[in-house]
Amino acid sequence: MSSEKELDELREQVADKTREIIDSIAARNALAKKIGAVKSRESLPVEDGRVEDSLVRLVIQECEDKGVDVQTGLKVLSAVLAEGKRVQGFQTKQSLITPQMMSTKAREIEATGKKLLRLDVGEPDFHPPRAVLDATSEALYDFKTHYTGTRGIPELVTAVRRYLERRYHYSAKESELMSMPGGRFGVYMALATTVKEGEGIVVIEPNWPAYKEVLQFIGGRASTVHTTLEEGWEPSVEAVHDAIRPNTRAILLSYPANPTGKVISPAKFKSIVDLANDHRLTVISDEIYNDYAYTECPSILGSGAQKFILTSSFSKTWAMTGFRVGYIVSSEENIAKMMKIQSLAITSVPEFIQYGAVKALDSDAEVAQNSRAMKERIEAAGRELDAIGALQYVRPDGAMYVFPQAKSADFDSNAFTMKLLEQKGVTVSPGSGFGDYPRCFRISLGGSMETIVDGIRKIGELLG
Amino acid sequence: MSSEKELDELREQVADKTREIIDSIAARNALAKKIGAVKSRESLPVEDGRVEDSLVRLVIQECEDKGVDVQTGLKVLSAVLAEGKRVQGFQTKQSLITPQMMSTKAREIEATGKKLLRLDVGEPDFHPPRAVLDATSEALYDFKTHYTGTRGIPELVTAVRRYLERRYHYSAKESELMSMPGGRFGVYMALATTVKEGEGIVVIEPNWPAYKEVLQFIGGRASTVHTTLEEGWEPSVEAVHDAIRPNTRAILLSYPANPTGKVISPAKFKSIVDLANDHRLTVISDEIYNDYAYTECPSILGSGAQKFILTSSFSKTWAMTGFRVGYIVSSEENIAKMMKIQSLAITSVPEFIQYGAVKALDSDAEVAQNSRAMKERIEAAGRELDAIGALQYVRPDGAMYVFPQAKSADFDSNAFTMKLLEQKGVTVSPGSGFGDYPRCFRISLGGSMETIVDGIRKIGELLG
Repeated sequence: MSSEKELDELREQVADKTREIIDSIAARNALAKKIGAVKSRESLPVEDGRVEDSLVRLVIQECEDKGVDVQTGLKVLSAVLAEGKRVQGFQTKQSLITPQMMSTKAREIEATGKKLLRLDVGEPDFHPPRAVLDATSEALYDFKTHYTGTRGIPELVTAVRRYLERRYHYSAKESELMSMPGGRFGVYMALATTVKEGEGIVVIEPNWPAYKEVLQFIGGRASTVHTTLEEGWEPSVEAVHDAIRPNTRAILLSYPANPTGKVISPAKFKSIVDLANDHRLTVISDEIYNDYAYTECPSILGSGAQKFILTSSFSKTWAMTGFRVGYIVSSEENIAKMMKIQSLAITSVPEFIQYGAVKALDSDAEVAQNSRAMKERIEAAGRELDAIGALQYVRPDGAMYVFPQAKSADFDSNAFTMKLLEQKGVTVSPGSGFGDYPRCFRISLGGSMETIVDGIRKIGELLG
Repeated sequence: MSSEKELDELREQVADKTREIIDSIAARNALAKKIGAVKSRESLPVEDGRVEDSLVRLVIQECEDKGVDVQTGLKVLSAVLAEGKRVQGFQTKQSLITPQMMSTKAREIEATGKKLLRLDVGEPDFHPPRAVLDATSEALYDFKTHYTGTRGIPELVTAVRRYLERRYHYSAKESELMSMPGGRFGVYMALATTVKEGEGIVVIEPNWPAYKEVLQFIGGRASTVHTTLEEGWEPSVEAVHDAIRPNTRAILLSYPANPTGKVISPAKFKSIVDLANDHRLTVISDEIYNDYAYTECPSILGSGAQKFILTSSFSKTWAMTGFRVGYIVSSEENIAKMMKIQSLAITSVPEFIQYGAVKALDSDAEVAQNSRAMKERIEAAGRELDAIGALQYVRPDGAMYVFPQAKSADFDSNAFTMKLLEQKGVTVSPGSGFGDYPRCFRISLGGSMETIVDGIRKIGELLG
């Protein structure tokens, strides 16, 4: 047989197999519709985590048995699961109101001239250190207005290295570091590097909604550990263990936590790191609030994690949210992957901003001052919340938020948030944005002491 | 039969169908291996565009017949095609050297103290307008150092609206505009919004490598129109038509072009827009070099395109590469989608930079001056290149590059680029970065007149 004829025949068989795949998806859809009808009749939820998990296991096993790349199998499963939900008429929950959405709404209202007491903002009202402003402006007038290497200017890389040595006694090589335009982009690159479509991570809730948003965007799946106020927002190592699925690639930790201010003990942190090591998982540690911690706060640096990505940012410690700059520490291999994404999508952080960031790392006095101020705000918020009988809360160990919970079992924080805005002109972020917390809402301590005290009193008035 | 039992039985059938899908992929792999063996025996290329196209057609037809979502089908096809290439031992070509790679290499050499004549840089050496520096610095000291809305500060949105009216007589609503951190991020969001995995766009080559890099990153496919120096880098409308596949979602245009400086006529631009309209395709128009155009340069604004995304940036016209800021014009629906991506990945452009960008849009005198200077550089580069017998080139209509081609048929621009760097200390970007152009290389006119003249003379010396 001629090669051309041989190829033609093989290609015809490839086409047949391709057609079979689509036909199997169509048959799956027909079954999904039947399942949807039964669930609808019995008022059962469309999503069922256990069923999906068993399919994940099946696909991994089948791929391994038949020599198909597991990532390909999980990606195809992800596509057909989404298709199955589509034909069942699955709709994403609409009740989620993220802090970003609140912030947009508040800014719109303020643009009409109305004054609000903003307890929703995820940024401190402190000023960036004067040395940062000066260095940024000087660099600007010195025409540091060009592209830089993806990793960042050498001065910034060196400054981060020295800072890590001083602050964490951690020696990082240049190849293990990079700058990036802010914490969100760090989270995006960390997840895009660790998780492929159809794979997932463990997230401890309540938590910053960006993690799940980004994960969903890249086709990943979150396996959540639900912690409660009653247990002091403490995750158990067993619960983290149970949340690990066969397609789990990472555990995400972020202490002090947004929105609870929780810090776990170094011993527990270590146990979770050990768990990650045992399962060969990456620990993604978002340490953006690390300087607003009022108890011993563990860091992934020096924790013994075999695979980790640390993301941090100049936003909170140095009040530089509007600069959009942060840094990542990881293995040389991961940093190379993330540099590829950054170079592709954004080239680099603005050059003169990088010169400003260098100076931030020397501004210890301002950091100490901001940290003290935040502690006072946490204490003041506690005093005010203590006076509100309808709420309970766990005193934050750090960060810049409190996450109170209504004692009433049928409290609806979405409705409360809207009522609070309309009747009292106070903005908070409802608990639905941070996980399944309909009785909670987040109070940000980014505003002035006066805003915090007045705002919480108005919350008390509305509840009382 | 009880509902629970009914569900269990249906779920078992779903599992069977899922297993069938993986088995079909495994069978496909076995066939792909056989095809790989035949191709290897006959020294045929692994990739075959026509075969992939016929599979795309087959999948679309089968999905439509069987009620499967076409995007799901194309995504699954994309995954199994990649898997098929993997088992055939397919390797991405390693010869590609992008301008970014050259730039990184050049910066590394310069860091050792060696002086280079940089003809690789994709940025002009002009200074940003003084008013931009002042406004940025003022905003900084005025503590415009906070998060902003995703779209950008209202002042910037208004300034872009007015600029579009003045420059293009185009009225855009606020909802049809957004700022973003630079042209690359614009391209990323434009492609992520238009193309899902397994879908594709038409790209006219030679072209800026970022388009294909970003496309590959999001799992899209480029269908390329190859233009030649002999035809004056002119694409034919027929060739663009022929490049449209059943999974094509957009045509990407970027005039004046990087690396050729080509501008197509408004009539041809209109014909391509008509073609896009006929096929319900989006036109993605990257107009970053629009102010460096020395012939009538068409814009997508007012072109009659029914679906379009215009990305532009402050980088080239105002010499603000290191600011990382640009703007996008599109439909309200597309802008909403892109704002979702930006809000997820990066929040916003740094606040004080947005104030600087506002002032750029008023700096007509500087724009005219930069544009005149670039014209002089193009003319000077032409005079120098005319003196080199071994090269031919098409005189650029705009942008800030020339893309000469060696007359010798076996010229290897990768090797030449390295030799030029080592022996003459001159950096250019080899043609492989811009498409299948082994005989070409890109000379950037971003440097001073002296750099350009000296650099091209050294090229002439090396070529003999």
